[in-house]
Amino acid sequence: MVELLRAGRRRVSEVVVAEEADESFIVSEILDLAREDHVSVVRMPRKKLDSLALTEAHQGVLATAAPLRAVELEEMLEGHGSAPFLLVLDGVTDPGNLGAILRTADVAGVTGVVLPRHRAVRITPAAAKSAAGAIEYLPIALVGGLPNAITQMAQAGIWSFGLDASARESIFATTADLAGPTALVLGAEGTGLSRLVGERCDQLVSIPQTGHLDSLNVANAAAIACFEVVRRRS
Amino acid sequence: MVELLRAGRRRVSEVVVAEEADESFIVSEILDLAREDHVSVVRMPRKKLDSLALTEAHQGVLATAAPLRAVELEEMLEGHGSAPFLLVLDGVTDPGNLGAILRTADVAGVTGVVLPRHRAVRITPAAAKSAAGAIEYLPIALVGGLPNAITQMAQAGIWSFGLDASARESIFATTADLAGPTALVLGAEGTGLSRLVGERCDQLVSIPQTGHLDSLNVANAAAIACFEVVRRRS
Repeated sequence: MVELLRAGRRRVSEVVVAEEADESFIVSEILDLAREDHVSVVRMPRKKLDSLALTEAHQGVLATAAPLRAVELEEMLEGHGSAPFLLVLDGVTDPGNLGAILRTADVAGVTGVVLPRHRAVRITPAAAKSAAGAIEYLPIALVGGLPNAITQMAQAGIWSFGLDASARESIFATTADLAGPTALVLGAEGTGLSRLVGERCDQLVSIPQTGHLDSLNVANAAAIACFEVVRRRS
Repeated sequence: MVELLRAGRRRVSEVVVAEEADESFIVSEILDLAREDHVSVVRMPRKKLDSLALTEAHQGVLATAAPLRAVELEEMLEGHGSAPFLLVLDGVTDPGNLGAILRTADVAGVTGVVLPRHRAVRITPAAAKSAAGAIEYLPIALVGGLPNAITQMAQAGIWSFGLDASARESIFATTADLAGPTALVLGAEGTGLSRLVGERCDQLVSIPQTGHLDSLNVANAAAIACFEVVRRRS
C-alpha cells in the first residue's frame, strides 16, 4: 500500500486502519502519505476491516482505490523512450511466480509487461502481494494473442528473444543487441513457450545449465534474463 | 524422489506406493529406478501412507531413506576441483526461498552450500520440495559461525563476494576474478548481510537496481549472482 500511495497512479478514495493496528513504521508512513495526498483516513474495529479485505494477509490497513488499469499494447509501443525493454509472459499460471517476476521486472527497469488476456493468471491478491508494489509502477498490457503482439512489436522495431532451454545460443554469448529495443519472452512453468509464440520470436536463446536438475524456476529464469539485459545496458 | 534414487547418495531402504496411485510416468519411473537399485517396493492403502508422510504434498509415493548428511566445511574445501564455487547463506529464513536458492544453485553448477548451524532455516519438507531434488546433489555444510567459515575459505584460496545492495561496485562490472575460486555470500531477506559477515568478505558487490522498488527477492538475487559467475566461466 505504501507503493500504491507513493506511485500516485491510481485514485485512492479512502484508507481504512484497524483501531487495533500497531502504530508501526509502515502504518505511520501510510498515514503520512495519505495526509499528503488528502486521502481520508477511517478507523474501524479489526473485525469489521477483516470482512472488507479480499485477502487475509493484510496488516490492519486497507485502501479503496480505482482498479488497476491495463494499458493498450499500441500505447505501450508508442510511449517508450529510446530503448524499450518489454517482458512477455506466455502462460505463467502460478500467482506467486507472476508476482515475483513483476517485482524483479520493476527492479530491472522493464518498461512494460505483456500478458495474454485469456490464458495466464490474473493479478490476484496473492500475485499483487508477491509483486511487493511493482503493479503500481509497471505498465501491463493484456492482449488477445501473443503471436500477433510479437509481430506488432517487430513492426515497432523491437527484437524479441524467446527463452528456450533447448536453444543452442546462450543469452550470455549472443551477439544480438540486447541493449537495443528488446522484448524477452518467457514460457509457462513446465511446458515452456508455446509453439506459435516460439516460432514468432526473432531469436531463441537459452540460459546455460550445468547442474543435475532439468530446469530453473520460471521466476529465476526471468530474473537472470532481465539482468543480462541490465548488464548489457550498463 | 526421482532425484533421490537417481543421485544414489543416500541408502534407500524401501519405497512405499499407495494402492490407489496412478501409474503415471513419474510413478513408473520411480518403480523402475527402485528395481534397478534393488530397493523393495511396498504397496499400502493411501490412508495408511498419508499417516506415514511428513508432508501433505506427496503424490502417493514415499521412500524411507538414510537422513541427509551434512558435509564438514574442511571436507568441502578440500574436495574441490580447480574452481570451487560456494554459496554462503547468512540467515535466509523462508523455506520456500531456501529451496528455490538450492534449486538454482544446482542448475548453476554451485559446488557447495554453507549454512549457519543455528540461525538459518533447516532443510524442512517445504524447503526440500521447493528445491526440486537439488538437496540430493548439493553438498551442504553447517557451520558454527559464518565469519570463521569465510576466513577458512580465504585460507583455502577462495575469494568471497558479499552481495550488498549499497555496495558501490556492481557485480557486473567488477574486475575481480569471478571465474576463479569463488564464494558468493547472501544475506537474509530484509536485513541483508550481518555486520560481521559483511566485514569478513573480501569484497562487497551490488546488483544494479533501476526501478522503483527497494530490493530484489533473495532467491532472485541469488539466481542473478550465481549466473553472473556462470557467464564469466563460460
